[in-house]
Amino acid sequence: MNIIELIGIVAGILTTVSFLPQVIKTWRYRSAKDLSLTMFICFCLGVFLWLIYGIYVSSKPIIVANFVTFILAGTILYFKIKYD
Amino acid sequence: MNIIELIGIVAGILTTVSFLPQVIKTWRYRSAKDLSLTMFICFCLGVFLWLIYGIYVSSKPIIVANFVTFILAGTILYFKIKYD
Repeated sequence: MNIIELIGIVAGILTTVSFLPQVIKTWRYRSAKDLSLTMFICFCLGVFLWLIYGIYVSSKPIIVANFVTFILAGTILYFKIKYD
Repeated sequence: MNIIELIGIVAGILTTVSFLPQVIKTWRYRSAKDLSLTMFICFCLGVFLWLIYGIYVSSKPIIVANFVTFILAGTILYFKIKYD
């Protein structure tokens, strides 16, 4: 693996797991007032389309990263609807 | 352009512009309490690495999408630090 692939993998991991702290914070404080519903609806839709795209082009990194992101961002969207 | 490329482009646009409503909401209400600082630090770092990756592999879509996302997510991070 060369440095460029490593940068791509680290980038993918960071942009995926970064949603976990938001899930934990929103769940712990049961508060999502400051989160934008429009953002998470658009983002979840976009990530879902990335998932479809990844399946079509058979790219495991795109599938795995966007599946995890969809679960995390979808959880935040659920909390936003539930706690607002 | 085939349907797969179209899905990818729409996915990229959605996951990029989805941060705009959050920028507007946080700026309008001057409130970022419910946003996770850790999320936006990790996400901005990840998007920056995607930008570096895109430059290395000379991929315009990756460069453009992540440059715009970096500006938007970076603005939210700035607001989070400023309004908290």
